[in-house]
Amino acid sequence: METPGTAAHVFDATVALARDGDDRYTGHTHPAYGNMVGPFGGAIGATLLNAVVCHPARLGDPVSLTVHYAAPIADGAFSIHARVMRTNRSSQHWFVELQQDGQAAAFATAVTATRRETWGTTDAVFPQVPPADSIAPAPAIPRAAWTASYDMRFVEGGLRPDGSTSDSSQTRLWIRDEPPRPLDFLSLAAICDAFFPRIFVRRPKWVPVGTVALTTHFHADAAQLEQQGTAPVLGVAYGRHFGKGFFDQSAEIWSSTGELLAASHQVVYYKE
Amino acid sequence: METPGTAAHVFDATVALARDGDDRYTGHTHPAYGNMVGPFGGAIGATLLNAVVCHPARLGDPVSLTVHYAAPIADGAFSIHARVMRTNRSSQHWFVELQQDGQAAAFATAVTATRRETWGTTDAVFPQVPPADSIAPAPAIPRAAWTASYDMRFVEGGLRPDGSTSDSSQTRLWIRDEPPRPLDFLSLAAICDAFFPRIFVRRPKWVPVGTVALTTHFHADAAQLEQQGTAPVLGVAYGRHFGKGFFDQSAEIWSSTGELLAASHQVVYYKE
Repeated sequence: METPGTAAHVFDATVALARDGDDRYTGHTHPAYGNMVGPFGGAIGATLLNAVVCHPARLGDPVSLTVHYAAPIADGAFSIHARVMRTNRSSQHWFVELQQDGQAAAFATAVTATRRETWGTTDAVFPQVPPADSIAPAPAIPRAAWTASYDMRFVEGGLRPDGSTSDSSQTRLWIRDEPPRPLDFLSLAAICDAFFPRIFVRRPKWVPVGTVALTTHFHADAAQLEQQGTAPVLGVAYGRHFGKGFFDQSAEIWSSTGELLAASHQVVYYKE
Repeated sequence: METPGTAAHVFDATVALARDGDDRYTGHTHPAYGNMVGPFGGAIGATLLNAVVCHPARLGDPVSLTVHYAAPIADGAFSIHARVMRTNRSSQHWFVELQQDGQAAAFATAVTATRRETWGTTDAVFPQVPPADSIAPAPAIPRAAWTASYDMRFVEGGLRPDGSTSDSSQTRLWIRDEPPRPLDFLSLAAICDAFFPRIFVRRPKWVPVGTVALTTHFHADAAQLEQQGTAPVLGVAYGRHFGKGFFDQSAEIWSSTGELLAASHQVVYYKE
């Protein structure tokens, strides 16, 4: 039985897939997660992960996800082929391909695994920032519809429409789905890609950009995500290097109580 | 024409592939890059990348590589299937699968691209450490043969055979191929996986571990790698979170003159 409020959320409609035989699905982009051109990459990544999560052969929860944005994705229908590459005793490796017009437009690899209690610790440091409700939400960006599907409250490192430059590519913000939706692996995967391209934080010049590949490591298990519910998560993002047409950007997503839920790492194409 | 010293290096023999028809190769593990069980993962990752680098349809140089270690790899022969998922004007997406006994034992995705001059900057900070020649090389670990194929000089964060514990999972070290070999994308890919599992830096207890998936972003182009030659590179590695059977570890590889050559991010399975 589905939770009423959850089933009705537009994010669920966005990542929804229809079974189309063994290992095959069909899906459709959604205007609520549209980007300037085509769909928001985070929604596509979450949709590819959904093909794994929905698969009857799946073992365990997502541990790792790498999404390749191989070509521009057109608004509209697509087909997905998900296949298990290897099943081990407590983990599984996946390859998922999204096609439009008979060509790969995006593809992903993933690891799912049964998590067990072990020794553990966190070396990354939970940032000390003002609470979400003390910060005003940033206005959505009209030509990037997906930004209206998130509530973003910037502690530092928003976009620089004022033409100023910054010595740092770091952003810290509170973020949650808008309207609120209980966090799960799919929405967490999308949020990992909801940071603006670091080049726009670092310098104000508008240039064409596009994520080429994005890897997310999930540290939380399903119980931790459930505990987070609809509360905002704290995101931290920064770039290491920009040069010769590509930059990288890493992000950490923390629960509101200071648990590291996921870390992601992407490489982004840019022009000029 | 090949440079004499390079062609003779054991690393080249380790990653060498024989063409076996369109998109297909055969290869063989090498004892010089053996690990405790099976081959060193860095050599396998470099071999998968070599299938892309060798491919007649390849466009540009490696920008991103994700390797999945899907199952234990046995010492011996393997076959590789490399296919272009999508070719764009200046970039290409790849999927490469390594099989043993008719099953996927490892697979990789990669992006190659033509690099162009653009605006650029580095936000990551080149660590200030003593020069390589002021530090004694660490002894190789007899039961991990591959460690003898590297010259490693630890500034901080070596293994802890003394039973002490550490508050930090960070390592900084100078590292190069042993014997010296001019740096290229393949050896750089392998070096990105040459950091000991962070759990052994963080606590001295020996537990079974294995890399599950490893993503490397290449920031250097071929000219920068050529400039580095056989000089040691500076590696920095750290973990963010250890819990419920998996930890992550990120690494940066810097040229001896302070250029960020690559950054890598892996998720590692551990028991207990």
